[in-house]
Amino acid sequence: MSETPSLAGLDWIAVDWGTSSLRVWAMDAQGGVLDRATSREGMSTLWPQAYEAVLVRIVSRWLGERTEPVPVIVCGMAGARQGWHEAAYRQAPCRPATPGSLTAVETAETRLAVSIVPGICQDDPPDVMRGEETQLAGLLAARNIDDGVVCMPGTHSKWVRLAGGRVSAFTTVMTGEMFALLAERSVLRHTVGDGGHDAVSFAQAVTDMLAAPEMLTAALFSVRAGALLDDAGPDACRSRLSGLLVGAEIAAMRPHWAGKTVHVVGAGPLVERYAEALRVAGADAVPEDGEALTLAGLSAVRAGMNGGKT
Amino acid sequence: MSETPSLAGLDWIAVDWGTSSLRVWAMDAQGGVLDRATSREGMSTLWPQAYEAVLVRIVSRWLGERTEPVPVIVCGMAGARQGWHEAAYRQAPCRPATPGSLTAVETAETRLAVSIVPGICQDDPPDVMRGEETQLAGLLAARNIDDGVVCMPGTHSKWVRLAGGRVSAFTTVMTGEMFALLAERSVLRHTVGDGGHDAVSFAQAVTDMLAAPEMLTAALFSVRAGALLDDAGPDACRSRLSGLLVGAEIAAMRPHWAGKTVHVVGAGPLVERYAEALRVAGADAVPEDGEALTLAGLSAVRAGMNGGKT
Repeated sequence: MSETPSLAGLDWIAVDWGTSSLRVWAMDAQGGVLDRATSREGMSTLWPQAYEAVLVRIVSRWLGERTEPVPVIVCGMAGARQGWHEAAYRQAPCRPATPGSLTAVETAETRLAVSIVPGICQDDPPDVMRGEETQLAGLLAARNIDDGVVCMPGTHSKWVRLAGGRVSAFTTVMTGEMFALLAERSVLRHTVGDGGHDAVSFAQAVTDMLAAPEMLTAALFSVRAGALLDDAGPDACRSRLSGLLVGAEIAAMRPHWAGKTVHVVGAGPLVERYAEALRVAGADAVPEDGEALTLAGLSAVRAGMNGGKT
Repeated sequence: MSETPSLAGLDWIAVDWGTSSLRVWAMDAQGGVLDRATSREGMSTLWPQAYEAVLVRIVSRWLGERTEPVPVIVCGMAGARQGWHEAAYRQAPCRPATPGSLTAVETAETRLAVSIVPGICQDDPPDVMRGEETQLAGLLAARNIDDGVVCMPGTHSKWVRLAGGRVSAFTTVMTGEMFALLAERSVLRHTVGDGGHDAVSFAQAVTDMLAAPEMLTAALFSVRAGALLDDAGPDACRSRLSGLLVGAEIAAMRPHWAGKTVHVVGAGPLVERYAEALRVAGADAVPEDGEALTLAGLSAVRAGMNGGKT
């Protein structure tokens, strides 16, 4: 990382510290991005004592000779029990990512004032989120809405209902992790390719699952059998596997989305696939940029710390 | 393996050659077992040219100086495309494992006459079995029945309808493989133990899935969230994961078993778990010993080769 002059306009630092990576933004007082950095040093690679050094190494070039501590607002898995410093879950229903709920972290570095956004938990059925609450705060702020249905696809997809500016209920679905396990480590790995998308196979699989979602574990093997018996190609098989899992997720989440507009929060092809599947299901999907919403959520927290609207 | 004298009463050799292991039996003309052997040299460890040498190494001590070839009847994955010699699937509906459908394999060893029992395929929905057809033949013969519902739990569970002595329809469910992937390689691995059974957690999970089978992929994460929020222990979490997957399988297979007696074919704890889950679902389950049925099926094929009833 090359040296850059310290940033005179630096007002605060935004951090999204996930399981596998870390994103850091230098922010000015107007919410503008002065600089940014990324690293592969996610939670899964760090022990608690290592976080501060990683962060200081990345941001010290922005700090220069300043003596007043710069606020650093962190969301994501850094707040988990096995992360930097535990930020205990807040209980739904609650407003997502409010300034008053931040957990302060002591640092040896006096130029930083670090606080972590806590995740949200739900009692019945038991469920937890960390990181998504900040994107939800960003969605409420950026779209100027109080209510909505949100689909956040990923390793562990979240489906969230927002009502009156609060997270009222949510569900985690392990679709992304199951896809990776089945595509890379199960008997289906002989059958599915590692690339292309076959829209017809994907849509057919989504349709199958919407019609009979209870058949998922039985339908998975049809991916293999289809290759053995019907010469289905690697792209078709991969898209069918994806369609079965995404279709099962959408079928299970029908009470969340039926008759509503769904904000699909994420990045690139994953958002496209979920929008495609929701269209097959007859739902209305609006793509939303996950990284932009994370930054919008952290900015809303920062604005609240200054006495602004939260 | 110690040397034993050649077996004067040897009439034929039974072989169950699976993905991960190999079982061989020395049989007399009355269907009695004279000797047996096992090996870890399953299909996944062998290339096609290696099978004959492995078999000869195991059985040559039984052959002695005889010059007439001894019939060897093989079932299982040795007949797959990537196995010893492909035995093309027969199409359901069909009688399982008949003498007339055997595929002969040429060998350099003149004291053996090897033939392989073919698997069975189904067109719509596409599905395949290899090995189970022999257990089904054994069930028909040993129980002297023509009709039945069969649950064969395992890495890839099979649910089979037998009608008029034929396999009329079947479905593969990837329950066992999904359990292994989720318990050992997913985020749930931090939560599930590697041992004990918690009957209450298991039964509750089965009940949950029977009530809402479409919720499987959403319910899986509750195993992790339950440990984080409710201090559910490793045994309870493991049993809940197992109960969710087995319950989802039984819910999906309801049209197979509703109002019928289910023959549960397998070994040990797995058969117990499925019988437990079927009882929760209100079904009637009869445990059946899988290895004994494999041998009964191969014996039925051998009897047919001699002109007996098949």
